[in-house]
Amino acid sequence: MTRSELIQQIKTKRSFLCVGLDTDIDKVPPHLLHHADPVFEFNKQIIEATADLCVAYKPNIAFYESRGVAGWQSLQKTWAILPKDCLSIADAKRGDIGNTAKMYAKAFFDHPVSGLGFDALTIAPYMGHDSVQPFLDFDGKWSIVLALTSNAGGLDFQTHPDATGVQLFERVIEKTNNWGTIDNLMYVVGATRGEAFTAIRKLAPDHFLLVPGVGAQGGSLQDVCRYGMNAECGLLVNATRSIIYASQGKDFAERAREEARALQKQMASELDARSL
Amino acid sequence: MTRSELIQQIKTKRSFLCVGLDTDIDKVPPHLLHHADPVFEFNKQIIEATADLCVAYKPNIAFYESRGVAGWQSLQKTWAILPKDCLSIADAKRGDIGNTAKMYAKAFFDHPVSGLGFDALTIAPYMGHDSVQPFLDFDGKWSIVLALTSNAGGLDFQTHPDATGVQLFERVIEKTNNWGTIDNLMYVVGATRGEAFTAIRKLAPDHFLLVPGVGAQGGSLQDVCRYGMNAECGLLVNATRSIIYASQGKDFAERAREEARALQKQMASELDARSL
Repeated sequence: MTRSELIQQIKTKRSFLCVGLDTDIDKVPPHLLHHADPVFEFNKQIIEATADLCVAYKPNIAFYESRGVAGWQSLQKTWAILPKDCLSIADAKRGDIGNTAKMYAKAFFDHPVSGLGFDALTIAPYMGHDSVQPFLDFDGKWSIVLALTSNAGGLDFQTHPDATGVQLFERVIEKTNNWGTIDNLMYVVGATRGEAFTAIRKLAPDHFLLVPGVGAQGGSLQDVCRYGMNAECGLLVNATRSIIYASQGKDFAERAREEARALQKQMASELDARSL
Repeated sequence: MTRSELIQQIKTKRSFLCVGLDTDIDKVPPHLLHHADPVFEFNKQIIEATADLCVAYKPNIAFYESRGVAGWQSLQKTWAILPKDCLSIADAKRGDIGNTAKMYAKAFFDHPVSGLGFDALTIAPYMGHDSVQPFLDFDGKWSIVLALTSNAGGLDFQTHPDATGVQLFERVIEKTNNWGTIDNLMYVVGATRGEAFTAIRKLAPDHFLLVPGVGAQGGSLQDVCRYGMNAECGLLVNATRSIIYASQGKDFAERAREEARALQKQMASELDARSL
C-alpha cells in the first residue's frame, strides 16, 4: 500500500486506527477453543468486526512465534485474510547485519518464499545502516523503525543525550531519514511520550508515525493528535488489548467493535477539526 | 548449561569455537537437495563433523524464518539434535516490551510450548530494561545482549559518545550489568573491533563474550584473545561461512571439519599459552 493510498483510506474511513493482533492463546475466549486453530478463528472474528473502522492491522510476531510451527501457521492464515484496504504490519522488531537482514525481509515481505507478504515491518535500529537498508530496498514495502517506545525501558537508552544534547532516538531519526524516504519509512513513537512529538515532528515532519500506547498503556489520543498530526494526518495509532480483550465472553467481537468504534469516532473528530 | 559446565567443556575440548548454522537453502550442496528437508540434512552432517571441535552452535533464526513454516520445522529438528555438551544459542536478536518479551522467551526457551529449548538467546537492547529482564528471569537460560557488533553499521549508534564520553555500547554494558549476572548474561562483541575489547573488559571483566566476525568477516582470533580473554577464557568465538560453506561439493562436511579443526588448533594454542 502506497503512502497516497494510505492517506486516502484514512480520509475515507475517517480513521487512523491500527488494531493490534497480539493474540495470546491463553486469552482467547473459551468457546473458541474447540476450533482447530483458535488463534486464527479469534483473529478472523476480530478482523470481521473491525475492518471498516481501522486502516491497519498489526500482529506482534512474538505471540505467534511462542507457539512454534503451530503459531507460524496461525500467522500465515491470519495474514492471508487481512483486508486489502488495510496496511498489514508485521510487528517483529527485527534487526541484523546485511545478508541476514535480507533473510528477515524475505520472511515478512516475500510471500512466495515464506508464505507472508506484509506491507510493513517494524525494525530495531541498534545495528545501524546495513541492518536497516535491506528492508528499505524491498520494493513497495514499508520499514517502521523504532524511535521512542512507550515502555518504561524506553528511557534507558533512547532518551540519553550525546555531547550536543541530541537524544539517541533523535539521532536514530536523523540518520535513518537519509536512508529511506517518506514513501517507505515510518517511525514507532509511543503515545505515552506526548511531549516528545513536537521534537520528532521537527526532525520528521512528513513521515507517518506508528503510535502504540493508547488504551491499556494509558497514552492520550488527544495529546498524540495535538503534537503529532501533520497536514496529511501522518499518524497510525495502535490499540491492542483495549480492543481485542474487551471481553472474553461470546460477545468478544461485538465488544471489540464497540471499543474500535469509540476510538474511530474520536479519530474522526480529530480529522474533522483539521478539515482532513 | 551453567557457566562452570561451559568452562569445563572449553578446557576439555581445548576449544571456544561456536559454529554458526546460518543455513541458506540456496547454498546447500546440490547433492542434498533430494532430501525431504535439505537444510536439516546439511545441519546434521555439519554437526556430526564438528561436534568434538566446538562448544557451541548458533543458528541465526532469519535463515529459518525466511522459509516460513518449513523453515521453522528445520529449526526444531536441528535444535533437537544439537549435542548436549554444546551450548545452543538462538541468534534471534529479539527485543520487545515486557509481556511480549515473555512470549519471545517462550519461543526460544520453553520447549513444551514452542518446540524449541535453546540454552541462550541474543537480544537487542534498544528498548531497555523491561525488554531484557523477562529473558534474564527465565531460569537456567542465558541472555546474550548486543553490545558492539561486527558490521559497518555498528558505528552508526553503538560507538556514539554521550556528554561524558561514554559510548552507547559501553552504556549498554554498564546498565545491563545491573540486570543480570555473569551466570545468565553475556555480550555480543564483534571480532572486527579488536581495540574495543580492552574497554569492554574494564566494564565486564568476568562475563562471557560471544564474538562473531572471525573468518569471512576478517576479524583476528589472536587480537580477540590478546584483548578479550580472561582467566576463565570468557570467550565464545563464532565462525559461520568459513566453516559451513568451505565447500559446496560432496566433501562439504569434511571441509567444514578441516576449517573447524584449524580454528580449534589455534584456540588450543591460545588456551595453552595461558595455562587454561
